[in-house]
Amino acid sequence: MRALVFDTGTRLAEVDDPEPGPGEALLRVRLAGICNTDLEITRGYMGYAGVLGHELVADVIAAEDDAWVGARVCAEINFACGECPNCEAGLERHCPTRRVMGILGAPGCFAERVVVPQQNLHRVPNHVADEAAVFTEPLAAAFELVEQIELNRGERALVVGDGKLGLLCAMVLESEGLHTTLVGRHARKRAIAEAAGIHVFEPALLQEGDFDLVVEATGQPSGLAWSLERVRARGVLALKSTFHGEVKLDTAKLVIDEIQVVGSRCGPFDRALAALAAGAIDPTRLIDGVLPLSDGVQAMRLAATRGSLKYLLDPRVEVGA
Amino acid sequence: MRALVFDTGTRLAEVDDPEPGPGEALLRVRLAGICNTDLEITRGYMGYAGVLGHELVADVIAAEDDAWVGARVCAEINFACGECPNCEAGLERHCPTRRVMGILGAPGCFAERVVVPQQNLHRVPNHVADEAAVFTEPLAAAFELVEQIELNRGERALVVGDGKLGLLCAMVLESEGLHTTLVGRHARKRAIAEAAGIHVFEPALLQEGDFDLVVEATGQPSGLAWSLERVRARGVLALKSTFHGEVKLDTAKLVIDEIQVVGSRCGPFDRALAALAAGAIDPTRLIDGVLPLSDGVQAMRLAATRGSLKYLLDPRVEVGA
Repeated sequence: MRALVFDTGTRLAEVDDPEPGPGEALLRVRLAGICNTDLEITRGYMGYAGVLGHELVADVIAAEDDAWVGARVCAEINFACGECPNCEAGLERHCPTRRVMGILGAPGCFAERVVVPQQNLHRVPNHVADEAAVFTEPLAAAFELVEQIELNRGERALVVGDGKLGLLCAMVLESEGLHTTLVGRHARKRAIAEAAGIHVFEPALLQEGDFDLVVEATGQPSGLAWSLERVRARGVLALKSTFHGEVKLDTAKLVIDEIQVVGSRCGPFDRALAALAAGAIDPTRLIDGVLPLSDGVQAMRLAATRGSLKYLLDPRVEVGA
Repeated sequence: MRALVFDTGTRLAEVDDPEPGPGEALLRVRLAGICNTDLEITRGYMGYAGVLGHELVADVIAAEDDAWVGARVCAEINFACGECPNCEAGLERHCPTRRVMGILGAPGCFAERVVVPQQNLHRVPNHVADEAAVFTEPLAAAFELVEQIELNRGERALVVGDGKLGLLCAMVLESEGLHTTLVGRHARKRAIAEAAGIHVFEPALLQEGDFDLVVEATGQPSGLAWSLERVRARGVLALKSTFHGEVKLDTAKLVIDEIQVVGSRCGPFDRALAALAAGAIDPTRLIDGVLPLSDGVQAMRLAATRGSLKYLLDPRVEVGA
């Protein structure tokens, strides 16, 4: 089958068809989304080589439990052992021997087909379009903020960074009743935020120490220090960006103002799917383009362009063509 | 009166007698403790110049409310405005215009007498000795961990650093029912910890990601990265050290393992006094010496010596001599 592979570079390749083992399901990909993590991987992050991609909506072709066959699904990306202390404590996403789809030890979904553990499947409600369902994984990552941090309606939240994840985090916080402000540089993205009821401001207008929660989603090391300055005493700074290397931090400010810094990664699929099903959040505004998988290299280049948002890959386009 | 002053250097000086204003109390100092923050100030931290010192037990000489006069007290070190949003939210210790005794805009207690807001006073129970009561402030800072972090009995805590604050934090966590381990380099301090029921280990024997809570109390920038490596996924890293300058941090580890970093500073005096009154914690094992205030410069030098613990200053010794 065809797949978008990263090893020394990013290229379309013919790879072996994946075969499901015990407890696994074989999926035919309907749509897959390009995430900043995919771009980071092509810059060396995680040292991953193989088929890229971890955001998908797909049809189940085969599964251990026949009841899944034919279902339209999305899939959690952390493949856990199910037996270690973390798994037993319900922290499967932190299983120390986990594989992660398209990121760590497991082929990704920028391909015609992909294999995932059956226990990772989530059924997509019928009335949720593919173009929305493909956002389930990044939207779940945004909902992780709600899982980890005690948030109260009316509190002031600031999301720093108007990229894909920043916009989704702002949409989630706004939908949870927080008074949410987005800081970003791109007029087009600000318009998307404003359409979702989110306030947008120039960085220069923001006062220090003014926010109960600041979400750092710039993907830039420099964003961290700037974000920290905007957190009130005893407030929370959530880190959603992963990037290569070390960052300098003023720990005296952390200690004196007793700030809580929370690293935040993957999140609850059920909450994301519920928000999509209820129409509470519409992520499709973030779509910049849908390209056939065969144009995957170009799509990755477009996704890496400054100011771009979500590019989707469609592996079905050439099927039967 | 005599006082230990830091400006260009540390020196014993004759300074004006402090005079209490409205809402303030005048205290005669019985004992004062030297803290690492005092040593940091003499290295430039906070840019403070004036009478040093913020750990004390004292007698009330004068107060707006006569009921306080004659009481043996300790005093909270953050002098808050009482009117701002933080103060109204019960976060007086984070009042943005606060003065801090011996640290920021308010003379300290390495002196014969000191003035503090009457609302900052806490009565010391009769059977708590001066040598224990003088630890109320740093012990309250250790109890701040309990206020900020949801701790469960039986969880595994690691305290990194066997200095004064590290030992007090370990004592508090052990007294709260956590399985507590201390990492330190000094045999004498390890013996103090072991006498308090705390486990002590060689750093080399500790595995990565093994602890629910790690408390960084080394006072060294290098301690932070080492501590972070020992926190389990979704665990907590508490920062108790304040030091000058920026620290490098591997934020990818923070995000991937969804670790929570909590800056922690001053804490609840009532909990500290209750623990002292109940005999649950005996901080007097940490005392290395009690020197007259007139030997304050020497005491600061001794306190800065590698391996030393708590030095106390007694301003009463030469009174009448």
